[in-house]
Amino acid sequence: MSSPSSNTIKYSKMISSKHGYKKSRVKSNTSDSDLLNIVMPKADTADNYFFQYLSFIVWTVALAFCSSVIIKKLCYAAAGSGIPDLKSIFSGFWNSSVVQPRVLIWKVLGLLFSYGSGLSIGKEGPYIHISAILANTLLNIKPFKNIATNETQRSQMLASCCALGVAATFGSPIGGVLFSIEVTGTYYLIQNYWRAFFTATVGAVGIKILLSTPSNDLLESYRTSFESLNLATVQLLAFIITGILCGLLASLFIYMYSKIYTWKKHNQDFIKKITPYGEVIIVAAVTAVITFPLKFLRLDHASAVHTMFTAHDGVNTEELKVWTDSMPFNNSILLACFLYILVKLVLTAVSVTLPVPYGIYIPLFAIGAAVGRFVGESMKLIFPHMKDIYPTGYAVVGAAALCGGATRTVSSAVIILELTNDMTFLVPVLLGVVLSCGIGNLLNHSIYDCFLRNKGLPYLPFVKIKSDSLVAKDVMKREFRYVTRKTTLLRIQSVLDNVLDYAIPIVESDDNLFLIGTISRTTLEEVISYHERLHSYSLKSPIEGEEDGSGNTIITINSQNHNYYDNNDNDNSLLLQEESSQIEMNLIPKSESIDQLDSNQQTQSQLQNGSTDHQDINNNNNSGDIRSSLSLNNEIIIDIVHMELQNPWVVIDTSPIHIVESMPVRKIIFMFMMLGGNVLFVTNKGQLVGIINKTDIVQKGYLHHK
Amino acid sequence: MSSPSSNTIKYSKMISSKHGYKKSRVKSNTSDSDLLNIVMPKADTADNYFFQYLSFIVWTVALAFCSSVIIKKLCYAAAGSGIPDLKSIFSGFWNSSVVQPRVLIWKVLGLLFSYGSGLSIGKEGPYIHISAILANTLLNIKPFKNIATNETQRSQMLASCCALGVAATFGSPIGGVLFSIEVTGTYYLIQNYWRAFFTATVGAVGIKILLSTPSNDLLESYRTSFESLNLATVQLLAFIITGILCGLLASLFIYMYSKIYTWKKHNQDFIKKITPYGEVIIVAAVTAVITFPLKFLRLDHASAVHTMFTAHDGVNTEELKVWTDSMPFNNSILLACFLYILVKLVLTAVSVTLPVPYGIYIPLFAIGAAVGRFVGESMKLIFPHMKDIYPTGYAVVGAAALCGGATRTVSSAVIILELTNDMTFLVPVLLGVVLSCGIGNLLNHSIYDCFLRNKGLPYLPFVKIKSDSLVAKDVMKREFRYVTRKTTLLRIQSVLDNVLDYAIPIVESDDNLFLIGTISRTTLEEVISYHERLHSYSLKSPIEGEEDGSGNTIITINSQNHNYYDNNDNDNSLLLQEESSQIEMNLIPKSESIDQLDSNQQTQSQLQNGSTDHQDINNNNNSGDIRSSLSLNNEIIIDIVHMELQNPWVVIDTSPIHIVESMPVRKIIFMFMMLGGNVLFVTNKGQLVGIINKTDIVQKGYLHHK
Repeated sequence: MSSPSSNTIKYSKMISSKHGYKKSRVKSNTSDSDLLNIVMPKADTADNYFFQYLSFIVWTVALAFCSSVIIKKLCYAAAGSGIPDLKSIFSGFWNSSVVQPRVLIWKVLGLLFSYGSGLSIGKEGPYIHISAILANTLLNIKPFKNIATNETQRSQMLASCCALGVAATFGSPIGGVLFSIEVTGTYYLIQNYWRAFFTATVGAVGIKILLSTPSNDLLESYRTSFESLNLATVQLLAFIITGILCGLLASLFIYMYSKIYTWKKHNQDFIKKITPYGEVIIVAAVTAVITFPLKFLRLDHASAVHTMFTAHDGVNTEELKVWTDSMPFNNSILLACFLYILVKLVLTAVSVTLPVPYGIYIPLFAIGAAVGRFVGESMKLIFPHMKDIYPTGYAVVGAAALCGGATRTVSSAVIILELTNDMTFLVPVLLGVVLSCGIGNLLNHSIYDCFLRNKGLPYLPFVKIKSDSLVAKDVMKREFRYVTRKTTLLRIQSVLDNVLDYAIPIVESDDNLFLIGTISRTTLEEVISYHERLHSYSLKSPIEGEEDGSGNTIITINSQNHNYYDNNDNDNSLLLQEESSQIEMNLIPKSESIDQLDSNQQTQSQLQNGSTDHQDINNNNNSGDIRSSLSLNNEIIIDIVHMELQNPWVVIDTSPIHIVESMPVRKIIFMFMMLGGNVLFVTNKGQLVGIINKTDIVQKGYLHHK
Repeated sequence: MSSPSSNTIKYSKMISSKHGYKKSRVKSNTSDSDLLNIVMPKADTADNYFFQYLSFIVWTVALAFCSSVIIKKLCYAAAGSGIPDLKSIFSGFWNSSVVQPRVLIWKVLGLLFSYGSGLSIGKEGPYIHISAILANTLLNIKPFKNIATNETQRSQMLASCCALGVAATFGSPIGGVLFSIEVTGTYYLIQNYWRAFFTATVGAVGIKILLSTPSNDLLESYRTSFESLNLATVQLLAFIITGILCGLLASLFIYMYSKIYTWKKHNQDFIKKITPYGEVIIVAAVTAVITFPLKFLRLDHASAVHTMFTAHDGVNTEELKVWTDSMPFNNSILLACFLYILVKLVLTAVSVTLPVPYGIYIPLFAIGAAVGRFVGESMKLIFPHMKDIYPTGYAVVGAAALCGGATRTVSSAVIILELTNDMTFLVPVLLGVVLSCGIGNLLNHSIYDCFLRNKGLPYLPFVKIKSDSLVAKDVMKREFRYVTRKTTLLRIQSVLDNVLDYAIPIVESDDNLFLIGTISRTTLEEVISYHERLHSYSLKSPIEGEEDGSGNTIITINSQNHNYYDNNDNDNSLLLQEESSQIEMNLIPKSESIDQLDSNQQTQSQLQNGSTDHQDINNNNNSGDIRSSLSLNNEIIIDIVHMELQNPWVVIDTSPIHIVESMPVRKIIFMFMMLGGNVLFVTNKGQLVGIINKTDIVQKGYLHHK
């Protein structure tokens, strides 16, 4: 503002791109360390141009190949962006394979190779993924373990760390939080807001301190500094055009990606026939062959963005020459931008179908900057006498708008404002992003949603069932396992062995499926171990005993019977005396229990899966003395409701959310989304008639969608 | 960054505060228009100091009094901030009296007087309120009316306009959206994000264009421009201290406000005894008496903030002198800041208990700036040889942190960054705000939540029931109105007259309260008008006819009978012939209907409210021929389920969310919050046993809370 030359742009000191992006090894033509000169001499010495070209191709292919081998052979979970996988987790489908420590190692290595190879890819997705894995690994360490057991708290913790991941990628804590909210969630609880910001702030303070030496400021390489901008001119229209153009290009990019992905899927056999790892080698080779001849295509994305944002009218002309010198006409920056957009858009769309770790933000950022610069330079040509047209400012708007359009995040505007450290273009940037997002939303889904869909990950908001014709009755599981109020240990064990759900329904009896409530797996396991402890009796030991020698087994069983009917003789009598009263409450006389089991058997026919445990028992009854006494012991009847009244650790949720058979699936999806949980119980006049699992809904929803 | 003098601060050109805050009329000592000189000559001419002092007091009291009269006599809904009222609306409790156009007029006028009087208040709340009223008024105009009928869309529209309100107050579109999300919501759907940003962007573009003349830039008065900041020093600790200090002060402010409010409530009679409008007159007089002698206390908040943010070390010393000259010691800015914090904090806490329109953001902003400046100046005293200590930067951090701490919004950081147009202090600002919010959350509720609580507005997340002992059974309404599947027009009318809920339950019959579904008021009204049209028969006309002359009434009834049993003779025969088949389906023979009504009567005793309509009918039956035939006609039995099958416009929601009697109220509140809606149906084995209304829950929750 105190600059004497008004209407021109003041430029921050140029930071060598190797500081900004250490991993972009080969093509950074501003970095000229000795090592690089040995491997790949300067392109300007004409005599060994061919050698350079070849080594460039070899290096690109080799690095991309390494990355692909890591992913394909060692850890497929480390492939791709990672954002879709986290989005699926945050929508309630926990998938521990995505956030394991080993994925972290391969993701870091794979990203090093793939990002360094020169493929047209970014790194924001992998960074977020790495943060999430780190968070999850920390949660498994002892002092934080109690957080991990609470599903909601674990999710919040992961979400906060995702914010940190973006903050680290871009050095923008505010944009980071907002970006991670937008790309991973469908709705956001305001109470988590503070936590995410706290995490991001700690991260930002850390980065600031780590990189505080003046010559090595990661965050300063994008800095711009514009004079004030007058919006009440034709420029407002130009910004609107930039926004709309970026929205269209973003949609085109997503369309291209989808088409390439589909084509590759249909021709997978053909691609494999040519060579193993064929696609990676071909794409890497093509990338190298195309980008080497034109210097500006070889630039890493950070350098390209730096030139677009800062080089202009006698400032940083060295950088700008890289772009214009390769062109047939003199100073034809317009043509260079056009070529850059065309080549990079196609290469990026192809690269993100490869089995390597990738992001898409930074390539799109560079392409968007070129789009903006193109519009800006055109404006300068059309209005040569207008004073305050900054093509570099247009580049800033374009970069934000294209990223916003592809990822459908308004926070791209915040990220770029933090990145450029300059608020002058606040309104044009916001305008561009909002328009680009709007245009994009009209045309197709965001790129992350496309990744998610192609990976086949479960995600609730995708299941869009327009008609109300599909109701609960159509999607519910009619064959389900349950625990009756009065049940046996064997039956509980059988249910636990066959059901994966966390909440298991308790019904009145097999005749009367009146839904009493739900009980958690953990509590049922505790119920079993409680009775095992009580009788020093394991469900599995009798069968093992039978294998070892039947004589021993009988003795064991007898001692158990003894324990039950006459506690005083037992070694554990002190413990058992205290608990004896409630045992007698919880256990019902045997004669009654057998009668009930017989009657149960008749109604069991309707429940194909549920009946196996009872048949086991009856098989046992028919096969001699040992088995008979064994099964009788297993048939100790436990009344769960009585147990709950007497034992504080037995918790029954007596008010599970139950729905009627006629509830439309659309409404069920809404309930899953908003209330969380994994299972809904379908009742008819209080009787349990079906169970709806979130995963089932997603599968049926996908079917319905296609 | 191209400034030759490094480590000093470059200052933007000073904008006269009258441009920034046109409404702050009296005390702006930088504005010296002729009019002001006549009313209140410069304070510096010593001979008429007393006259100035007096006129200052008179003006302050007079303007505050006017504002208070407007609110108390003309429109009480215009009082206060407006944010709590909107928060209540967004939480699902629609209150049309808050968003009526007349409130707009009185709010604007009241704010003009109260803000102009010199009371220590802000304007962000009223601006948001005004935006919401404008949005609501627009929604009642024809082209937008279909949006207004959809509750969700209406809420989204209002929420977007609230974002615009903040954007207009601070000139910060991004901060505006985030602030309005944080202060009005409990959770936020990401899909609305874009809409809110679009609205705010349009607003920001509009402001930019309207205020684009260089000399009149509203948004530039707060601009700062710092050199780069090194965080890896003792300054990091100082910023943390600023954040914590602001958090404590914010909590103290909220505590003071609550105490003053409670004291005033208990001593209302005493205050009224002294004088009508006593509190306003006293507070205004005290404000004037205290603030006049010390010039810097007289400053409007915008000027104070401007000085704190920019005046330093030989730059803008004129402004700084206003602060230091009044002090006994020379240049004791520390003492001035301390006095400013003390006086303003108390005055603001008192002012926001008055019945005038007020905001709290801008006074807190100024106080926070003083807090930050205090810490900054202290740092400079403690470390005199450290080079990059900017007390002005501390002022920025303090302003954001105090506002963040009182409103519990992280977006205060974004607002201040947009306001100062400078990202250099991004990390310290974020750090201060996050710490201040965290400290605040540990100590008490946000100031807006206190407003909400004191106004007694319904708001769900406040109802915090820790124990699970309170269940659905305890809070449900056991006496409720319903429509039976087979019902009469008179009964439907009676239910409509007595029930305000939107969704009315349909049960199987009076004996069997099996919940079939719910039907909307609108549909029931249409059902009545459909049958009225069908029979050219109005429910109300027989009674009116009876009053006019019984002879006429009989004729009317006869012609109705005629219509019903023999459609061909009717004038509307063409219309009716088409519909005759379904009439016969929908209407059940009379004999059956009367039997059913008799049996119904027996079970009605359990429903005190529900029985009135049937007693009406029976009274009619016993009182002569005319009434008898009248009541028989009213007893045309309609089967609503049949009607739904044959008429696409009759929509029954066959899957209302029903819950069991044992569901904890905590869970019910969660369902209301996440799923929306106003009513939940409590069933037992499919039988409707009670209805839970959101409003009832809030009332019982409040009771439970106290």
